Parts: sequence; C-alpha cells; structure tokens
Amino acid sequence: MIVVRTVGDLRDALRDRRAGRIGLVPTMGALHEGHTTLLRAARAADDTVVASIFINPAQFTEQADLAAYPRTEAADLALAEQEGVDIVFAPDAAEVYPAGFATTVSVTGPVAETLEGAERGRAHFDGVATVVTKLLLAALPDAAYFGAKDAQQVAVIRRLVADLGIPVALVVCPTSRDADGLARSSRNTRLSPGERTRALAIPRALQAVTDAAAAGISDPQALRARADAVLEASGIRPEYVAFVDPETFAPVGVVDRPVLVAIAARVGSTRLIDNTVVATAQGRADTQAGGG
Amino acid sequence: MIVVRTVGDLRDALRDRRAGRIGLVPTMGALHEGHTTLLRAARAADDTVVASIFINPAQFTEQADLAAYPRTEAADLALAEQEGVDIVFAPDAAEVYPAGFATTVSVTGPVAETLEGAERGRAHFDGVATVVTKLLLAALPDAAYFGAKDAQQVAVIRRLVADLGIPVALVVCPTSRDADGLARSSRNTRLSPGERTRALAIPRALQAVTDAAAAGISDPQALRARADAVLEASGIRPEYVAFVDPETFAPVGVVDRPVLVAIAARVGSTRLIDNTVVATAQGRADTQAGGG
Repeated sequence: MIVVRTVGDLRDALRDRRAGRIGLVPTMGALHEGHTTLLRAARAADDTVVASIFINPAQFTEQADLAAYPRTEAADLALAEQEGVDIVFAPDAAEVYPAGFATTVSVTGPVAETLEGAERGRAHFDGVATVVTKLLLAALPDAAYFGAKDAQQVAVIRRLVADLGIPVALVVCPTSRDADGLARSSRNTRLSPGERTRALAIPRALQAVTDAAAAGISDPQALRARADAVLEASGIRPEYVAFVDPETFAPVGVVDRPVLVAIAARVGSTRLIDNTVVATAQGRADTQAGGG
Repeated sequence: MIVVRTVGDLRDALRDRRAGRIGLVPTMGALHEGHTTLLRAARAADDTVVASIFINPAQFTEQADLAAYPRTEAADLALAEQEGVDIVFAPDAAEVYPAGFATTVSVTGPVAETLEGAERGRAHFDGVATVVTKLLLAALPDAAYFGAKDAQQVAVIRRLVADLGIPVALVVCPTSRDADGLARSSRNTRLSPGERTRALAIPRALQAVTDAAAAGISDPQALRARADAVLEASGIRPEYVAFVDPETFAPVGVVDRPVLVAIAARVGSTRLIDNTVVATAQGRADTQAGGG
C-alpha cells in the first residue's frame, strides 16, 4: 500500500492501473467497520482500491464540530492496509483548497436544501459536492463507494454525478450497524455509555416505522407518531423525522412506494443521523409490479 | 466527420481514440474565422479534433439575446468538415439539461463578479462554468481551445479547471480580427454597415491605450482617457473600460506588469466586447527579468 498526498502523485500512481477497474472509497478518516464494509465491497469488485482520507473543512458549518472530529491517521492507515487498499490519498487542506480557490459545485432543490441542508446550512452540501467532485476527478475511478447511512449525501452526490456527467458508477452499501442496532459513525466515540444506550432509540424508532408500514399504515403522520413515541421514551427530541422520496428528498404524503425515513437527533451533545427505506406491503407490490 | 448528439455517443466515438491526443473546441455555433483559428490550432496539435456546438441557454441572461443568437448548423458543419474536424458534438438542451437538473458550478470573486459578470448578471458565468465543466467531462480531452477575445470567460474557465482539477490543458488563441481590426464575433452579423464602421473605434481605443502604455504612461486613469476620447469620437459610450489583472480580474492601480484592458460597448443594439494585454516598457522589462 502506498500513501500519496497530492493529486499529481495520485494520478501518477494510477496511470498504469487504468487497464483494470479502479474503485474509490472517499472517507474523512476515523475509519470504523462501516468503512470496512465499503473497502471490502471495492476490494471484491475492483483491481485497484483507492481510499481517500480528508477531513473536509468546507462541509463543516460548525467550527467546534470540525475541531472535535476524530483524527486517527495511523490507525486508519493500518486498517486500510489490512483491508487490502492499494493507494491511500490523504491530502492536506492546502492541496485541496490552494490559495485563490474560488469554485463551488452546488446542488439546489430539496435534496440539498432540506433536512441536513437546512439543519447544517447551505454550505454543508456545497462543501460535500465540491470535495466529492474534486476527489472523483482526481482519481477518475470506475466506481465510488458510499454508505447508505448518509442517504442525503448520497442523493446529492448522485444528482451532481448525473448532472455534470462524471463518468463513475456510484455503489451504495447498506448501513453498517453494531450488534445492538446503532448505526456505525465516527461520532459514536463521543457518546458516554448512558448516551449510547439512549441512542439505541433511533434505530428502534426506525424499526417501529418499518413494522407499522409493513402492517399497512401508509400515512406519514401516523408513522411519525410511532417513531416519536419510541424516541420520547428515551428522552430524545429529534431535529427531524422525515418521510421523503429517496432520490429527490421531496416530502411524501402517503407511503405508496418505497420511502426514505430519516431521523436526526442530538444525544447529549452528539448529533446522530440514521435512516431506512420503508414500504407498505401494497407499496412493495406496486413497485415490483412496476418492475422497480 | 461524424456528428453525435448525446454524451454516450460522444464517449463511444472517442473510446478507441484515447491512445492519441484529443482536442476540444467548444463553440456556440455561428462559426466564423475566429473559430477557424481554434480548429486549426487543434488540428495541428491533436490526433482527434472534437468541436462542440451548443447554444447554452443557461449563460444568456437576456431572453432576447438568446432568441437572436444566430443558428447556422448546416453551415457550421460544412466549415467544421472543411477544417478537418473528426467529431462534432451537437447536443440539444434536453441532453445537456435533462429534467431534474439541479447542479451549478460557480466561481466567485472579481474574475466572475465584475465586468461581464456584473453587466450580464451572476447567472452568466455560472452558466458558462457549468456547461464548460460538462463539455470537458463529456469529452475528457487532452486540450481545450478558447479565444482570447472572451478573456474573462477564459479566466473563469482557467479558475474552475484548476480548482476542480479537471485534467485538461487550456489553449488560448489570439483574438482573430478582420482586416480593419474588428474582433471577429458571431454578433458582428447584426451590425448595420454604419454601425460596423463606428464599432472600429473599439479596437482603435485599445490600440491607443497600447501605444500610450508603450510610451510610458502607467496610470490607468490617464490611459482610460485615451480610450474614452477615441470611443467618444465615434459616439460610443462604453459600458466599461477596465484595467485588470489578466488572471484574477482584480483592478490594477498602476500598469507595472502586463495588464488586461477590456472594453464592452453597445453599438446600436449590439453588444460588443474586446480586449488586449498592455504593458509599459518598464513593466515588460520587469516581467522578463522575473522569468514570466
């Protein structure tokens, strides 16, 4: 495994590997088993696996959040090597945003402006869109791997990749969860033991919605009440519990097709997000009948 | 020569040509001898020459200007074939901006916000930046060719190509001029004979500034007075006569290095732009001494 710090060195390292498939796993470091899932998917499908590690200041809208983000490069490199990564691209901020940098890739509409876009501010997804564009253009991979936990980020990236015509296939891997159901996140390390127990109400709330939808409840307000009850029992007041189209993030009025249920909540001072796709039995049947 | 209408067909046509150099000449059609200069530069340097023809609605901030823009595809294709173009990429608006399109590439700072950016509105260079990004990613050429007449457009594109790391070399060809000095432009066809004669004041004003700078005048205000006198004699009130850094478009206070002089003016109802780079003898000497 080699570690490169500049786009030039990355391209040099990839030049002789383009006859085979190249997979890119973009990360902000603090690698955990969620990332392992992505690295293994790439390792299984591609001839060359590139992992990028870059804590992107442009997508942090709170300086405290950026400052508190875990930085664990030595452990990250060890895990990457163990997972068979060929090339780690770990640039510093001056390589990604040199003096005079003045370009932003921006996605508009509910996919970028609601939920995380509203809570974290417009700059968040602008920062994500710009850095992901840069990473994709630096590596020009055949495939790039993202986790379903960041569903809105994935939808924003899917939008910009289609709109700009970046020649890459996006592979979305299912959310990786601890045995108790908590979605894996670099932020989980900040939870106290008590907070971690309370945080389990988030996946339980998603499960309650999944079960209720499967039982035929298709009204988002009725489904939301199930989630709220579970969260409230653990003293969690969510920032949002949203029922949206998984691609456009437009709110849905009835669960008559697969719908993304997304939750964001602070547990103590740690902000967590999680989501799942739910469908009523009828919605699933309709989708299958429609060939989807 | 083949004509393709979709990104997919363009990529298919280029797939077996990537062992050699690919050159892209992006145009909005209405091809004239200015474009010929670009096509010949590409033909001389590259193995495959791609010309794109797309009247980009996103960069027109006046609907009347878009409606009046000349559409001459049959003649354009004949000229492209005559100049040895291999592939013409001529998509329609729905191919470039399909339903749901929601992504913008945006450059900030004086390079995009002053002069043409101010006169034509912020959407103009957003439209240019977005479509050029798409064209470059569709063709992934080794080189792309632009005319120096659109100096600010070139500077915006240079900025976004550097910032996003698009792997392409930009080649800027000198402004092509008619024998009488008028910069070639698709808009020139709209000038009446009398307007065309008056329009010659624009290149004469640039020449007056060039001569005055060569004679040692380094104060932009004094230089501007020379330009204004020439323009006024032909009854032309410019929208701007600007002295700016050729890369950043920041205004310069003294011509002590090569400076871009840019003029925009309406002659009748036709809006014309032109520019040149000027330097005082001292400025040139300093630049050469500095290895520039």
